[in-house]
Amino acid sequence: MTLTIAQVSKQYRDVKVLDEISLTFEIGHIYGLLGRNGAGKSTLLNIINNRIFATSGTVVLDGQKVSDNEKALNHIFLMSEDNLYPDDLNILKLFKLTEHFYGSFDYEFAAHLVRAFKINTKTKFKKLSTGYRSIAKLIIALCVPADYIFLDEPVLGLDASHRDVFYKYLLDTFMKRPRAFIISTHLIEEITTIADEIVIIDQGAIMQSATTEQIKRSGVRVVGPEASVLAFTKEMTVMDQETLGGLTTIYVQNYPKNSIVPEDLTVSPLTLQDYFIHMTSKAGESNEI
Amino acid sequence: MTLTIAQVSKQYRDVKVLDEISLTFEIGHIYGLLGRNGAGKSTLLNIINNRIFATSGTVVLDGQKVSDNEKALNHIFLMSEDNLYPDDLNILKLFKLTEHFYGSFDYEFAAHLVRAFKINTKTKFKKLSTGYRSIAKLIIALCVPADYIFLDEPVLGLDASHRDVFYKYLLDTFMKRPRAFIISTHLIEEITTIADEIVIIDQGAIMQSATTEQIKRSGVRVVGPEASVLAFTKEMTVMDQETLGGLTTIYVQNYPKNSIVPEDLTVSPLTLQDYFIHMTSKAGESNEI
Repeated sequence: MTLTIAQVSKQYRDVKVLDEISLTFEIGHIYGLLGRNGAGKSTLLNIINNRIFATSGTVVLDGQKVSDNEKALNHIFLMSEDNLYPDDLNILKLFKLTEHFYGSFDYEFAAHLVRAFKINTKTKFKKLSTGYRSIAKLIIALCVPADYIFLDEPVLGLDASHRDVFYKYLLDTFMKRPRAFIISTHLIEEITTIADEIVIIDQGAIMQSATTEQIKRSGVRVVGPEASVLAFTKEMTVMDQETLGGLTTIYVQNYPKNSIVPEDLTVSPLTLQDYFIHMTSKAGESNEI
Repeated sequence: MTLTIAQVSKQYRDVKVLDEISLTFEIGHIYGLLGRNGAGKSTLLNIINNRIFATSGTVVLDGQKVSDNEKALNHIFLMSEDNLYPDDLNILKLFKLTEHFYGSFDYEFAAHLVRAFKINTKTKFKKLSTGYRSIAKLIIALCVPADYIFLDEPVLGLDASHRDVFYKYLLDTFMKRPRAFIISTHLIEEITTIADEIVIIDQGAIMQSATTEQIKRSGVRVVGPEASVLAFTKEMTVMDQETLGGLTTIYVQNYPKNSIVPEDLTVSPLTLQDYFIHMTSKAGESNEI
């Protein structure tokens, strides 16, 4: 089963929010969808899930257009930041509502998750804190029978222990019933431990799409005296540059393996979070004071 | 200037939310306030800031009781998760409102921050996304003339680049005008890079209060065959235990330096986040599947 996003664009009046996004999502992978606030991630997820229309482009599941196609849409589920649930229903009723729409619901696994997160299923959704709203929504997302599960900021407001529980159960259910999970998150270091594919969206376009391993190996920091750093990185892809206390740092993408490093320079790998920050820094504000 | 919290308790009907909390906050430190969702952090911050009353105990600033004492309260500021601002005001009007209450406001620094975060000061607060609401609130918190700045989940919804900008400006303003910052957050790894003191609250009580360095050195993971792990850690403070694929892991607090490790065991340091997760695991849900 393959979900193909082909040249999807979205325009609001003069503003191009998405610009010809093309992507393929396959069953059996966990995708980390990264991007700045305002990069267009939520718009893309809403288009894929038929909540808003694309200005142009298509979303196709195994040859079938997804928009307004109930059968295809039944394979897709979006846990979004918006609270679309009726406020007055308690959590158990939300499970039943989901079952009603998707035809089935994994109550056995839901019971495990309810115990693990210590959430009371008789609590009304509107009475929950930010963290527990996220928990209620992600329990539903993990128990729905769909094959493509999109999670938009699933860990918003969760404490570190709850995030740990979520990641463990996500991997557990993914092993038992392979699906595609597409997770949009600002907690970049944590997503690298569970996602095998990373998609970076910046200013409405795909900036990079690669395996987590490829991206982890891609970025380095070169530190040393300015002239020496500039000479060494002259032919490389420079993402960002900083100067602090007489030392210059240049952030390089696709660092050529086996480079011979001059003695006055240090080259060290970037965490994925640092890579992301420096890769998307052109887009906007200065990181310097 | 010293802010002393002495034996503060809070009871709601049968539930003891805070149980004799005693703490001292000094100017010139950045404190990380850690705790599970529901541990009592926000209740404590609301009591210190005179938004709710303690059932017993006192909050004292340099010998003066803080509760209902306008002069003392002028030294304290709380950025909370609750949106207490009038929805219809734009950000610039919120700056002016803050100036009105606190007597002054650092408009010059605010202008820097507005540019760094690329936020439009003419936008009404209610029109902002979760991330930008946090940004508006933290700009106010950094520009207010108070000496004790309490930040409750300041980076909720912020992307990684915005968090980076925030941490840099926080350290910058802290260097220029030393205050006490007390930051409650679920992003534990990130707080360890800026806080020099850590307070862990669990189930309404202080579980640990120490320097970041002390806590970083305190926790280890001992891995190996069950019998050998149990024998080695018998006299140690065990926080948590897991078994996976025939290997047992025991999480130890206050690991004795210079311990002689048997050949079939590995001992490795814990990140502060792992330390926190395993230290507070007794409180609640199982981390196991």
